[in-house]
Amino acid sequence: MRQAFLPEGAEALDNPYGTAPGIWLVRGGVAFAALPGPPREFTPMLEGPLRTRLSALGGTPLHTVVLRAAAVAESVVEGLLGDLVRDSLVTAATYAKTDEVHVRLASKDPEALRATADEARRRLSPHVYGSGRETLAETVVSALRGRRQTLATAESCTGGLIGARLTDVPGASEAFLGGIVAYSNGAKQALLGVPSELLAQHGAVSAECAEAMAVGARKSLGSDWALSVTGIAGPGGGSDEKPVGLVWHGLAGPDGASSHKAVFGGGRDQVRARASALALELLRRKLGG
Amino acid sequence: MRQAFLPEGAEALDNPYGTAPGIWLVRGGVAFAALPGPPREFTPMLEGPLRTRLSALGGTPLHTVVLRAAAVAESVVEGLLGDLVRDSLVTAATYAKTDEVHVRLASKDPEALRATADEARRRLSPHVYGSGRETLAETVVSALRGRRQTLATAESCTGGLIGARLTDVPGASEAFLGGIVAYSNGAKQALLGVPSELLAQHGAVSAECAEAMAVGARKSLGSDWALSVTGIAGPGGGSDEKPVGLVWHGLAGPDGASSHKAVFGGGRDQVRARASALALELLRRKLGG
Repeated sequence: MRQAFLPEGAEALDNPYGTAPGIWLVRGGVAFAALPGPPREFTPMLEGPLRTRLSALGGTPLHTVVLRAAAVAESVVEGLLGDLVRDSLVTAATYAKTDEVHVRLASKDPEALRATADEARRRLSPHVYGSGRETLAETVVSALRGRRQTLATAESCTGGLIGARLTDVPGASEAFLGGIVAYSNGAKQALLGVPSELLAQHGAVSAECAEAMAVGARKSLGSDWALSVTGIAGPGGGSDEKPVGLVWHGLAGPDGASSHKAVFGGGRDQVRARASALALELLRRKLGG
Repeated sequence: MRQAFLPEGAEALDNPYGTAPGIWLVRGGVAFAALPGPPREFTPMLEGPLRTRLSALGGTPLHTVVLRAAAVAESVVEGLLGDLVRDSLVTAATYAKTDEVHVRLASKDPEALRATADEARRRLSPHVYGSGRETLAETVVSALRGRRQTLATAESCTGGLIGARLTDVPGASEAFLGGIVAYSNGAKQALLGVPSELLAQHGAVSAECAEAMAVGARKSLGSDWALSVTGIAGPGGGSDEKPVGLVWHGLAGPDGASSHKAVFGGGRDQVRARASALALELLRRKLGG
C-alpha cells in the first residue's frame, strides 16, 4: 500500500526489477529523485529512467574515469599520484576496498580529464589492472582468452573464492577449466598429488606446498596455467613462525612453477579476499609480462 | 588533516581498525554520532565505544530478534507471519536479501518479544535456519560437527561459491574436506568420474549429472556427504528446454544420492548466489530430518 503513494506533484519511475517504484520530482528548479536501494534495482534505474530525466534538464555533465588497482595499499597509490591534481580542473579521490584501491578522477572538462587520467595511469603502472567497472577477474579471463590459454586453481584457505570470482565473469568457461578446493591435507595429497613427506617437512602453509598444489592442479585439469593459495586465514591456527595472515601463493605455467609469500592484515574475511585478489594479480602480471 | 578536525564540543571516538575517528556529540539533549562507513570499522565501533555512551544516556533499550530463512520467497514469509504483530507491542520487518529472507522483530518489552519470536519461529518452520548473525554455512558446519561428519562439494555454475561460504566459517576444516570446481565437462569427467555417455545423453545440466557429480565428490574426498550444483547462470547458454536460471542440485550421503531441480530468477549473480544457498539449505534439512 505504502508503495502506491507519491509526494504531491511527483512522478513514479518504473522499476522493472522489483515492486518499489522510484520517485522523480522537480520543484523550485531543484530535481529530487528517490530510488530503491538494492543494487540490482538501483543501478538499472539510475542508468535508465533517471539518466534520461537528468539529461533532459541540461547543464554540464561531470565526466569521470575510475582506475582500478589490486594488491596495493591506498597509501602507495596516493604517494604515486602525488600532486597530480593540484591546480587542476580535475578532482581525484581514492577509495580503499578490502582488496583493491580505486581512483576516481572527475572533471567537467573532458580534455583535462583525459590528460590527467593518462598521467595517472602512467604513475600507477603496473598497479592499474583496469578501469570503469572492469573486475580483476575479467581482466584475467580476457588476457587468457586473448592467448587461447586455460587456467585451473588449487585453493586451500580461500576455499573457492578464486573460482567464484573467475566464474562471476560471463564466458569464463572459455578460459577457466575448474579447480580443486583442497581444504584438508588429505585432499591436498589425494587430489593434487602433494607428497605427504613434503607436508610433514614443510607444512601445508609453505612455498613448497603452494608450488606443488599449483603443479598438481595444472596436471589434474590439463590447463596452461594454475594458481594456488595456502595460508592461515585465522582467527586460530597461527604461530610465531607462521602467523595468522601468512599466505603462500603458487603459480604454475608452461615455463615452470614459482611461489610468492604475503602477510595480510585484517580478519579472516580480509585475509581471504586479499589472498584471492593477489592470486589473480600475480597471474595478470605474469600474462602481461 | 581533515580527519583531525571535530565539531565544536564533540569528542573523538577511537577507531582501532582505521584512520578515521568516530564523532560523539550531545547537544540540547540530543545525541549525535558519526562512524566510519566500512563495516569492519563501523561494526566494532558501534558495539564498542558507541554502545557504552548510549547505555550511559539511560532510557529503555529496544530489543530485537532476527530470524533468518533461506531458499524461500519474501512473500511466502510474509504470508506465514500473517497477523502475528497486529495489535502487538512488537514490530516486524522482513528484509529480502539475494538468497535469504530475514525477519526482524523489535520491542521494548522483552517478554512480548520472546513470545512473538517463538510464535514466528513456529509459523516459519522449517524455513528458519538460524537467528541473529548466524549464517546458513555456520548452521551447516555446526550440524556436521555435531554429528562428526564431513562434507565435500562439486560445483559447476557456482564455481566455488559454496566452498567459499563454508570456509568463511572459522573452524570449517573440521567438517569441510574440500571440493572440486568442475566448470568444464572435461573436469567433470576427469575429477568427478561423470561418464561421458551420461553427459552426451542428458547434458551437464541434468538430474543425472548432478547426482553423478555428488557421488564422485563424495568418493574423491572420502566424505560422509557431498553437495553438487550444475546449472545455467546466464546470461548466455540457455535454451527453451533448459532456460537460464535452471539449476540441478545433487546430494550424496550414506543412504544414497538424490537430486533437486530449481529455476531461479534474476541475473547471473543472483542465480549463482541462490543456487549456492539452496545447496546448503538442502543439506541442512537433510541433516535436521
